[in-house]
Amino acid sequence: MKFVIQRNRLVDSVQDVMKAISSRAAIPILTGIKIEAKKHGITLTGSDSDISIESYIPSEQDGEINVDQIIEGSIVIDARYFPDIIRKLPENTVEISVSDQLLVTIRSGKAEFNINGLDADEYPLLPEVQTEDSFTMPIDLLKYMISQTVFAVSTMETRPILTGVNMTLKDNRLNFTATDSHRLASRHVPIDANGLEFSNVVVPGKSLNELNKILDDTEELVEISVTANQILFKSKHLNFMSRLLEGNYPETSRLIPTQSKTTLYANTKELIQAIDRASLLAKDERNNVVRLSTINEQLIEIMSHSPEIGHVEEEIPIKAIEGEELNISFSSKYMLDGLRAIHSDEVSIEFTGSMRPFIIRPINGEEVLQLILPVRTY
Amino acid sequence: MKFVIQRNRLVDSVQDVMKAISSRAAIPILTGIKIEAKKHGITLTGSDSDISIESYIPSEQDGEINVDQIIEGSIVIDARYFPDIIRKLPENTVEISVSDQLLVTIRSGKAEFNINGLDADEYPLLPEVQTEDSFTMPIDLLKYMISQTVFAVSTMETRPILTGVNMTLKDNRLNFTATDSHRLASRHVPIDANGLEFSNVVVPGKSLNELNKILDDTEELVEISVTANQILFKSKHLNFMSRLLEGNYPETSRLIPTQSKTTLYANTKELIQAIDRASLLAKDERNNVVRLSTINEQLIEIMSHSPEIGHVEEEIPIKAIEGEELNISFSSKYMLDGLRAIHSDEVSIEFTGSMRPFIIRPINGEEVLQLILPVRTY
Repeated sequence: MKFVIQRNRLVDSVQDVMKAISSRAAIPILTGIKIEAKKHGITLTGSDSDISIESYIPSEQDGEINVDQIIEGSIVIDARYFPDIIRKLPENTVEISVSDQLLVTIRSGKAEFNINGLDADEYPLLPEVQTEDSFTMPIDLLKYMISQTVFAVSTMETRPILTGVNMTLKDNRLNFTATDSHRLASRHVPIDANGLEFSNVVVPGKSLNELNKILDDTEELVEISVTANQILFKSKHLNFMSRLLEGNYPETSRLIPTQSKTTLYANTKELIQAIDRASLLAKDERNNVVRLSTINEQLIEIMSHSPEIGHVEEEIPIKAIEGEELNISFSSKYMLDGLRAIHSDEVSIEFTGSMRPFIIRPINGEEVLQLILPVRTY
Repeated sequence: MKFVIQRNRLVDSVQDVMKAISSRAAIPILTGIKIEAKKHGITLTGSDSDISIESYIPSEQDGEINVDQIIEGSIVIDARYFPDIIRKLPENTVEISVSDQLLVTIRSGKAEFNINGLDADEYPLLPEVQTEDSFTMPIDLLKYMISQTVFAVSTMETRPILTGVNMTLKDNRLNFTATDSHRLASRHVPIDANGLEFSNVVVPGKSLNELNKILDDTEELVEISVTANQILFKSKHLNFMSRLLEGNYPETSRLIPTQSKTTLYANTKELIQAIDRASLLAKDERNNVVRLSTINEQLIEIMSHSPEIGHVEEEIPIKAIEGEELNISFSSKYMLDGLRAIHSDEVSIEFTGSMRPFIIRPINGEEVLQLILPVRTY
């Protein structure tokens, strides 16, 4: 194997595939980056067996030469050293070649590295995911849906299925739902999916977080394919594969109250700032409780109390309150997460009494909801 | 105690004094910030008993009112909460008042915090440091001297005196020296000290690192006072006090070779980059060894070898080599630290054989030297 490549293209691709590589990989060869050279281009692969990322650099693109002097072949290089080496090389081009003894020579300018490679034949084969049952959507919309839901997945392994985001597609509507059983985030978007439908597709939250980091915020399309146990996100030069979680995702729609007793309309930013302040005295994760009380039709009070530290209270003028008076306590963290994920200048919050879950929705019409269970304080 | 203060001034001062506060303070009251209100202004104090920082906010400055409605008094407020509270308050002014029961009320706009304070009388008295035997120097020059030496202090507590920087003042020349016994950094600057002299003043490296962070890079003057066991750095509104290390700093001048067998003149940046690359295969702190060999009068080779990982070599054209041929091995970390602290486009490196310490100096005439002991590799 041999090729000469534009260094900045290689740096970018290495950075992408590194997101899948764990230094504590179960299979030693997965601590490496697989590099495969074909006449048409170079493919880099990183995997931790849950997530696999392939980045492709075409030899020629828009009339520019990215890769030259290609002799086909493949090798696996230790990911602890390769990224820094490539990043710090002196010239704009790099020559990478591999001897019969799997010794990798990396040359740029006067600098020459010789490092021991691993046999690419021992690198696990990635699952075949691409199917004809796929649909496309804009990358920025996918990223938006992820950011509005993924934070609500469970971080506890007691119910593994809740560590993932449930994707469903029905009637050309794509839904993401995440819940840790104390709060729930749900987002719907219309998608042109040509009648494709699925449910109970549960993608690990960690995979979606990595995917969100790796995808640029563009309007270009990503193609999404789902099989029984894998999902593939395919953009221009990137394949991102994740295993799916096994098990049945709970039915969540019945958790969402359909009536409300008190509805509050507020400026999102003012509410976020007041709750953020009130949470300052309640830094302990378990005791992170803030209380909201209606005062009159245009005023609420946010309050928090910590016996050892002190007390904080703040009155906030709001746009309107409809319905019954209310005193309710909740986790300030969940409330802030929910409000921040709404992305609307104004929100409505629908309460059904101080012991029932409440729902935050935007006023801008987007189909997103954040449901939060209150905390019993007396 | 009561006052109303410009919030941004308070935020800046809190940030400064926080640099002295440790959450694991030996005396519980030192986890707090002391606030003292006088008619002429507010003084904030933070201390971990090694370092103490006082920040002063004058009531009036350049015709602008910083602090208003002052009722004199003092209080200690828990530093775990106070900085975030001040930073996140809604308005540009803050009212702070203290009840007879030491309850602190912090008001800004509609937000009100009530937190338990501590009795300022229990806060330890800071040592009286200011003496008439003081000298002044520009802040930017002090920061520069610190940055060129402090990295070379020892991090091992086996010889505590080496964890500090030795300051001496003689014949209107100020010297900073730091060594961990494997390398040594030394910097001299001329100072107008009116004949003041001292030696064996050893300031903990940690104190100088914090001082360097807290001082803005300006040409304004800092006043430096030294007593038997304390040093005070006094700038416009800031007093920074540090204890001195006890013990005798070793005599280091005899360690510095006065003759050389090989002298090399090189571009600093090119040398740094090549050694940085060579160090990539030697990430292990103990094995972080790079070898330099002269090839001819204008070429050296930088090389590193790690049996498990691989081999790297690079030829670097340099300006000149005078004297004998040379093969020498050294810690790439020490070499990079030394070269980076030189701040000169070109450096000279004087060697006295492969087993003797060598010296890096700038070509720009500044009186700084970096001495490094080589590593025996065969």
